[in-house]
Amino acid sequence: MPGVADTLDLTADPVTLTVALVDVPSVSGDEQRIADLVERSLREQTALEVVRSGNTVLARTNLGRERRVVLAGHLDTVPVNDNLPSRLEDGVLHGLGSVDMKGGDAVMLALAGTLTDPRHDLTFVFYDCEEVEASRNGLGRVERELPEWMSGDLAIVCEPSNGVIEAGCQGTIRVQVRATGKRAHTARGWMGVNAIHLLGDAIARLRDHESRVVEIDGCTYREGVQAVGITGGVSGNVVPDECVLTVNHRFAPDRTPAQAEAYLRELFDGYEVTVTDFAAGALPGLASPAARELVEAAGGAPVAKLGWTDVARFAALGTPAVNFGPGDPLLAHTQQENVRVNEIGHCYEVLSRFLSAMP
Amino acid sequence: MPGVADTLDLTADPVTLTVALVDVPSVSGDEQRIADLVERSLREQTALEVVRSGNTVLARTNLGRERRVVLAGHLDTVPVNDNLPSRLEDGVLHGLGSVDMKGGDAVMLALAGTLTDPRHDLTFVFYDCEEVEASRNGLGRVERELPEWMSGDLAIVCEPSNGVIEAGCQGTIRVQVRATGKRAHTARGWMGVNAIHLLGDAIARLRDHESRVVEIDGCTYREGVQAVGITGGVSGNVVPDECVLTVNHRFAPDRTPAQAEAYLRELFDGYEVTVTDFAAGALPGLASPAARELVEAAGGAPVAKLGWTDVARFAALGTPAVNFGPGDPLLAHTQQENVRVNEIGHCYEVLSRFLSAMP
Repeated sequence: MPGVADTLDLTADPVTLTVALVDVPSVSGDEQRIADLVERSLREQTALEVVRSGNTVLARTNLGRERRVVLAGHLDTVPVNDNLPSRLEDGVLHGLGSVDMKGGDAVMLALAGTLTDPRHDLTFVFYDCEEVEASRNGLGRVERELPEWMSGDLAIVCEPSNGVIEAGCQGTIRVQVRATGKRAHTARGWMGVNAIHLLGDAIARLRDHESRVVEIDGCTYREGVQAVGITGGVSGNVVPDECVLTVNHRFAPDRTPAQAEAYLRELFDGYEVTVTDFAAGALPGLASPAARELVEAAGGAPVAKLGWTDVARFAALGTPAVNFGPGDPLLAHTQQENVRVNEIGHCYEVLSRFLSAMP
Repeated sequence: MPGVADTLDLTADPVTLTVALVDVPSVSGDEQRIADLVERSLREQTALEVVRSGNTVLARTNLGRERRVVLAGHLDTVPVNDNLPSRLEDGVLHGLGSVDMKGGDAVMLALAGTLTDPRHDLTFVFYDCEEVEASRNGLGRVERELPEWMSGDLAIVCEPSNGVIEAGCQGTIRVQVRATGKRAHTARGWMGVNAIHLLGDAIARLRDHESRVVEIDGCTYREGVQAVGITGGVSGNVVPDECVLTVNHRFAPDRTPAQAEAYLRELFDGYEVTVTDFAAGALPGLASPAARELVEAAGGAPVAKLGWTDVARFAALGTPAVNFGPGDPLLAHTQQENVRVNEIGHCYEVLSRFLSAMP
């Protein structure tokens, strides 16, 4: 017989499930124990097909429904910072992973345990290593090795979103803008060409730049172009011959990375521009039937997701995807992270209503 | 009896003396051998009072003349760079220290050996550690410990000046110009204040700045304000809250460092400005009688010295000071450094004419 700590009762209150998950430490790379617990708990649900890949646990119904909804959440956390075990106080659950994102994982587990006759077929993806470099991301591994587990008519990533549907996400591109001059001794500065002075105009263009505000499917995306680094200089008495400005552009999902690059090359016309990295955005996709139902169940008013998230991985595969989960994302990665328990309940109720009510 | 290498014949041709000095390696900190050689050679001149301080050698006449002229040269070189021993070819002497500044040292030694009845009393200062950090500079040690050896009516530092009198020198001041903003995630850039963007205007002021051109005693000083370094940035997705620009201002000797600082504070009004280091310039002082005689002996047309040199140490003590020595200063510190031997002869002749002719 398994002991109390060996499986979770998935019919329990999702807040109880959140507490249980928070109290199993699962810093990135060290998710075996929590993945074992989630796997054993899901395998007790006879209606689910369960697969394990490393410390990622996949489960799905195969009911032959017309549509399939994928729910995804990562099991790992950032490093422990004297914020374990959990502590429930005045309706607020404190502790590492409470908001990012074991509240969302608990909602997913509660849905797996209670939706015996769901309106759509369901796929659950509990993955590892989201909080570290992208190459280790468990969802990326699923994308490469088990892509059929990511396909569906709608994907819901249960990262914290204040219990509001955040649709799509903005893309991001980073470029280096380089000015090249000519060295000289500062005592004879006119014999050189100062690369820092040359870059002044590029900075002025940034300062004067007005970013687009784009509305798609009722969501407003506010773009931005920001200098994130600058470096130049040879020594205290030399006119520098090189200065490099690093710029990060966040762009609405109506543009591809190639279009964003062209936009930056035009903005910095006359300078050498080199792309260092980029990630495509994701269109909100709220026009799809399943997404419309979700928005209705949530009471409307979806908002744009501005930061880049794993939502974009689904969008890249052609699956409309949204962020929807309990808690304030600004608390993520702070020592004081916490989640209000009524938000956990709210998210569970919205998703349960969306997925259980027959049309 | 001392061997051939133990003393120099100071009545020899100054080119011969230059060859002898170049062939005694004397990288900064390792000047004992050359200082010994110079000291022994000077002590053979019975009319000279000779003093040794570390690896600095001081010598002077005490003839009761109305005026005193100080001649100064450093004995050290930058590190050896496969450019020893010396090589004389087609009227050009190649080798480490040939131009910086054993040609000048040789002229000084030849004057010590041949001016038996000089028009002015003479002081010779051969010093160590000029090519390294200022705190080790031998002339600085003389200034602190034997200041009477630096006083006179005119000082001539025999650093290379293309055989032209370079008068005074410009001052130098370095400041940090700092912009302070507010961090934010670049996905929500409008919640922050970008410190790099804030510094753009300071760079524009630099780019548009017109430096003064100042004429003093017939010498033209061309000032400059140059960015020499810039640094800012937290990470690739953060609006940076700090950006620091380092600026070097070279100013004509009609201004004090305090005036130069006030000028920069006005130029960068609205920014935090911090002075990191400065050195006063030196007025050309060509109106003094001894300086006028030197200019006449050299055939007129003195020019402004733009870089900071040890000339300023004399000026700070109230002694008019000029740079006058053989060779092109732009060759200093290069592997290929060399000096045309006819410039060594020219400098010797000018100084000999100036110092030996009775009024």
